[in-house]
Amino acid sequence: MRTKIPMKAFTMIAEDSGARAGILKTRRGEIRTPVFMPVGTQATVKAMTPDELRSVDAQVILGNTYHLHVRPGEKLIARLGGLHKFMSWDRPILTDSGGFQVFSLARLRKITEEGVHFQNHLDGTPTFIGPETSMEIQRDLGSDIVMAFDECPPHPCTHDAASKSLDLTLRWARRCKDWWESQPAESRPLVFGITQGSGYADLREKSARALVDIGFDGYAIGGVSVGEPEEEMFRAIESAVPFLPGDHARYAMGLGTPPQIIEMIARGVDMFDCVLPTRLARNGTAFTGLGTINLKNAPFAEDPGPIEDGCDCHTCQNFSRAYLRHLVKAEEILGLRLITMHNLHFYLNLAARARMHTVAGTFQEFRREFVANYVPNGAKE
Amino acid sequence: MRTKIPMKAFTMIAEDSGARAGILKTRRGEIRTPVFMPVGTQATVKAMTPDELRSVDAQVILGNTYHLHVRPGEKLIARLGGLHKFMSWDRPILTDSGGFQVFSLARLRKITEEGVHFQNHLDGTPTFIGPETSMEIQRDLGSDIVMAFDECPPHPCTHDAASKSLDLTLRWARRCKDWWESQPAESRPLVFGITQGSGYADLREKSARALVDIGFDGYAIGGVSVGEPEEEMFRAIESAVPFLPGDHARYAMGLGTPPQIIEMIARGVDMFDCVLPTRLARNGTAFTGLGTINLKNAPFAEDPGPIEDGCDCHTCQNFSRAYLRHLVKAEEILGLRLITMHNLHFYLNLAARARMHTVAGTFQEFRREFVANYVPNGAKE
Repeated sequence: MRTKIPMKAFTMIAEDSGARAGILKTRRGEIRTPVFMPVGTQATVKAMTPDELRSVDAQVILGNTYHLHVRPGEKLIARLGGLHKFMSWDRPILTDSGGFQVFSLARLRKITEEGVHFQNHLDGTPTFIGPETSMEIQRDLGSDIVMAFDECPPHPCTHDAASKSLDLTLRWARRCKDWWESQPAESRPLVFGITQGSGYADLREKSARALVDIGFDGYAIGGVSVGEPEEEMFRAIESAVPFLPGDHARYAMGLGTPPQIIEMIARGVDMFDCVLPTRLARNGTAFTGLGTINLKNAPFAEDPGPIEDGCDCHTCQNFSRAYLRHLVKAEEILGLRLITMHNLHFYLNLAARARMHTVAGTFQEFRREFVANYVPNGAKE
Repeated sequence: MRTKIPMKAFTMIAEDSGARAGILKTRRGEIRTPVFMPVGTQATVKAMTPDELRSVDAQVILGNTYHLHVRPGEKLIARLGGLHKFMSWDRPILTDSGGFQVFSLARLRKITEEGVHFQNHLDGTPTFIGPETSMEIQRDLGSDIVMAFDECPPHPCTHDAASKSLDLTLRWARRCKDWWESQPAESRPLVFGITQGSGYADLREKSARALVDIGFDGYAIGGVSVGEPEEEMFRAIESAVPFLPGDHARYAMGLGTPPQIIEMIARGVDMFDCVLPTRLARNGTAFTGLGTINLKNAPFAEDPGPIEDGCDCHTCQNFSRAYLRHLVKAEEILGLRLITMHNLHFYLNLAARARMHTVAGTFQEFRREFVANYVPNGAKE
């Protein structure tokens, strides 16, 4: 039985060689896809102000259900007016379900049909999150796009274990949808389901079909980028996408490198989030069209040029590689700030360029050229 | 013999109860005094961009001769166009002489008539800085206000040791002035002398008189805030100021708390620099008119108000104490960034208010009220 979604959230406006350009309507405004969503784990995209996120054209950011539940708590955030007001961000927020963190960070997990009992990673406090709890936390945060609570099996995982885990995830997805339907229609956010199934094509297909039967505003591919080889990651995506409706948004969770994102877009994925641009910046690594460079390295000591020629981000417009190298070597916070700014601009701009080329019908050339130029293990310095 | 200074850099425009409002002309523009100068030790005011410094009305910032000599080196900075271009800051820069750091950070110091041999604090490289070296480093950096190289005796210090040290500092001051006069007049920055003499009034007087005989564009009081009690610090200032010319700028180095700055202004001091606003911010401490508050503390957990009511800084306009507390507790960089911004605004605004009240003839009331309201060891939370 397929439950009707009252309003269709996603509109595809162009398609080219598998890539899609679309618009996702949320209650806090429209999101142009393909879109990269900066990760704001603890109610902040690391080292950035909301003004800076707007200046690099971030349309939507992620909040983390698990982290915010543990600290400072969704009830506190709700009493202060919700996550948007708390962090002074007025554009859409997508919250993950907490599933991934429960399975990667928390201790002494015990999984039951009801949900997951665990001790949080900060002070070991016994905690429980199940499908309804996850939805309630996301509601209290005031999220505009909520994710169904899922179990994330580890990699590698036998077919039998992946199958059992998927069945539980699907029962939880049903409960999330039921919870969502119990809420007043006028205050409901968008709700996305998450496909699982590890690297097994039959399970990915089953997962996609079952979620579509339940009916969601969008569909995510979860359980990827958990340590599997790249080809297995692509296979997981390719196994699910054909069974997801073309008129709904698709979201590959926690991915990836710039060429991986382009390859996902070529496979019909619309939404991405990844900690790489912010995390690598804190290590002095900057993204360019030719691959990453580490600004700690000696060749940049007297380099008067920007991180990337032609880049119009604030960092490249004002600061040299030599200055950034000095800041990184001297462990100055400004260094990681400026590189974070550039890296976010790079990722956001990458999705925007993919969209532009999809609309223009030149996505295939863009993809070929971008992937050919990008050296995966670091640009030649 | 007093050497004529070609252009008088400082103009006093108002005086009230000891406080002075003035204008200091530099080759990169005018500085309205009293002025607080944010400290940019390693070619960055910690955690801040130049745009942000401009947004809080920073008129002039400090660069650190010792630190920049050790890393990345003034020659490298000069090849890249100077410190202003390197860090993308187009307003005046004052560089200290390196003396204070040589005596507080460096290892295996050997002081001779020529200068100081030492091993730098980073990798122990043997290094030498003397009066001429210090001036050359400051020239290579492109500083707009250079400081004469001085010896900073430790606290406490006998009268005999302080006297011998002062004599050396005065001979070095003469050599700095000679070096400065050997430079092309059109490219010379302003040059300030530094009075020393520890806590001894007779030595402070001697120091001031001797420096005035040599003739500088401005006069600093050094060797204060080195661990001495507050009354000794005030005595050092009070012992020097009467012997400094009223038509030249006076600069108390490395000071202080907000009420100390007000008390120095009341004693005729015009310029200040201090790491407190930036350093304490990184520990979660914010300045208010009632004293400091530590945002880590529990009472702020659900406090929806800004750090300080009525404050028009970016932080107070956009973020609550509750959010800042969360960021500090979660060790998020944005927390220390936002508190740094507020604290710098507080210090810069404090000097601007002192100036306004001096011009208006209401400095004494302002001083009395400010000092009475400010609780030195932390506001009641």
